[in-house]
Amino acid sequence: MIIHAFAASESGGRLKPYKYEPQELGINDVEIRISHCGICHSDVHLINNDWGVSSYPLVPGHEIVGTVTSIGAAVEKITRGQRVGVGWQSGSCLACEWCLNGYENLCKEKQLTCIGKHGGFADFIRTDSRFVFPIPEPLDSAHAAPLLCAGVAVYSPMKIYGVQPHQRVGVAGIGGLGHMAVQFAHAMGCEVTALSTTPDKEDDVRRFGADHFINSNDREQMRTAAGSLDFILFAATTTLNWMSYLNLLRPNGRLNFVGRLTFAGSSAGTLDIPVAMLVAGQKAVSGSVTGGRAMMLEMLSFAARHDIQAQVEEVPMADINSALEKVRHNQAHYRIVLKN
Amino acid sequence: MIIHAFAASESGGRLKPYKYEPQELGINDVEIRISHCGICHSDVHLINNDWGVSSYPLVPGHEIVGTVTSIGAAVEKITRGQRVGVGWQSGSCLACEWCLNGYENLCKEKQLTCIGKHGGFADFIRTDSRFVFPIPEPLDSAHAAPLLCAGVAVYSPMKIYGVQPHQRVGVAGIGGLGHMAVQFAHAMGCEVTALSTTPDKEDDVRRFGADHFINSNDREQMRTAAGSLDFILFAATTTLNWMSYLNLLRPNGRLNFVGRLTFAGSSAGTLDIPVAMLVAGQKAVSGSVTGGRAMMLEMLSFAARHDIQAQVEEVPMADINSALEKVRHNQAHYRIVLKN
Repeated sequence: MIIHAFAASESGGRLKPYKYEPQELGINDVEIRISHCGICHSDVHLINNDWGVSSYPLVPGHEIVGTVTSIGAAVEKITRGQRVGVGWQSGSCLACEWCLNGYENLCKEKQLTCIGKHGGFADFIRTDSRFVFPIPEPLDSAHAAPLLCAGVAVYSPMKIYGVQPHQRVGVAGIGGLGHMAVQFAHAMGCEVTALSTTPDKEDDVRRFGADHFINSNDREQMRTAAGSLDFILFAATTTLNWMSYLNLLRPNGRLNFVGRLTFAGSSAGTLDIPVAMLVAGQKAVSGSVTGGRAMMLEMLSFAARHDIQAQVEEVPMADINSALEKVRHNQAHYRIVLKN
Repeated sequence: MIIHAFAASESGGRLKPYKYEPQELGINDVEIRISHCGICHSDVHLINNDWGVSSYPLVPGHEIVGTVTSIGAAVEKITRGQRVGVGWQSGSCLACEWCLNGYENLCKEKQLTCIGKHGGFADFIRTDSRFVFPIPEPLDSAHAAPLLCAGVAVYSPMKIYGVQPHQRVGVAGIGGLGHMAVQFAHAMGCEVTALSTTPDKEDDVRRFGADHFINSNDREQMRTAAGSLDFILFAATTTLNWMSYLNLLRPNGRLNFVGRLTFAGSSAGTLDIPVAMLVAGQKAVSGSVTGGRAMMLEMLSFAARHDIQAQVEEVPMADINSALEKVRHNQAHYRIVLKN
């Protein structure tokens, strides 16, 4: 078998058609014919080797939806012909305390879909069935693909940090992750405030379920909203005045950053916050990274029940380079999904 | 009635005998004959006006134990002759969502025992009975006094942030607060690591219940302990390398700062942490400030049941200035309690 993929052959390079022979199907593996694959900012970071972990040729892509074409001898929970998804993570030890507690995302031996392996910008992938998730029937494949990474990345912190329906949730940065976060928080019953440097997004974001919109470049608006939010999910990519966000929190509030991608290679990646601001109102600053397998299943089920969908532009897989350019320049509305 | 107190008449000044006539006993107030009052670092900050909130003459003291000598007309839960305590907070609105949820410490209208009022370095105090707490019988008055501020300050964050008995708790800074935190964490069933810049404290701290001791000035020890703690309660007063503490945390771990006093007027009061360090292991940095009334009662009951006691030096109230000097220079072992 030969897999037809698109790969970068050097740091920052254009992707080119690339064929490879996959490893033999392991007993726990499945083979998936990929129908859709979302483009995440972290794919760009991997192509650029921004994190120093890339090896070339590199096939990015980790918001994969497709149909199972073959299953390993030990695979029991996934069947041939089933529509499934694969996200950022493709394996873990399955035995440590983190794995056993449903925090596979914190396992020291975790494996990732397109680091040290070839990802989803391809026609097929072979991957561990235990990190393959059935896509609930109501979800459209193109709209579901971004749930596998962006979706769980924003759903998980709201769950693990105990966001409750009566609370006021802010979402900073209305892009691929943020526009999903607004939908999830709205569906959870929260009062949702979207914060963006792009006032043009207000109409969209209200459609996604935001109750309020703040132009985060507008100091007066930021000041007026002081002390109004219980939880801020920070998914923006721009430099920011950390304190102005901390200032938005109510007592017991939390400012949470999703994914290191947000700040890679940027000085904005360093916090500079007086401890007194945390102490005075018993506030927290935290980070989160994707979510475990139970979280993924829960998120997919919740998304299906509440009709939560990424807003996507579908682009043929062959147009991958122009699509990546749009992602590089934050011009995707709101997620680009490649289609075979 | 005349109350005989000790007051500072100017910023940083020595305390001098000071008499004042208290306000008439309000219907919810009680009058307490003070037997003991602990000295907290924040008393020094108030004397120095480090926080810009002091007014003079200023009577510090907010770890008060004494006997009720008089009760207001509406007081029902506190009786004459009862042994009671008063801590950092002396009032709140009792009606906002924070008060109703047991977070009186987060109430916008909270009142404090010795800011804008005269505190416990005195023979008597009149104060709101609703922030007066019965001292459980088994607790000795001198040992109980520091529970009213230092005790609840360290107990509360362990409770609100969900520290569990199987977890590994670090206590950084083994002084008035830290030596209580070690005892509480040990009594909660946790594996306790004490972190101090003073190796001489190791014997004491093991007696308080620590399982491990780390000299936090020793880079090698700090490196060896990387990724070993679920929760760090930071109660030190010295400048520090924030990242070396964050580095001690396990996945899902939290570094919590207790009280703004720790960093008043110091550049060490600013966090400088790469967001990636929070995101990678899903870690949090937070602050906490005292605890509500239910927390105070719970803490006192827990302390009584587990025989948790501040280690104190008892000093006659008249020797207040030499006692304050010891506190100023971190020479108290581990808390000084003034005695009438």
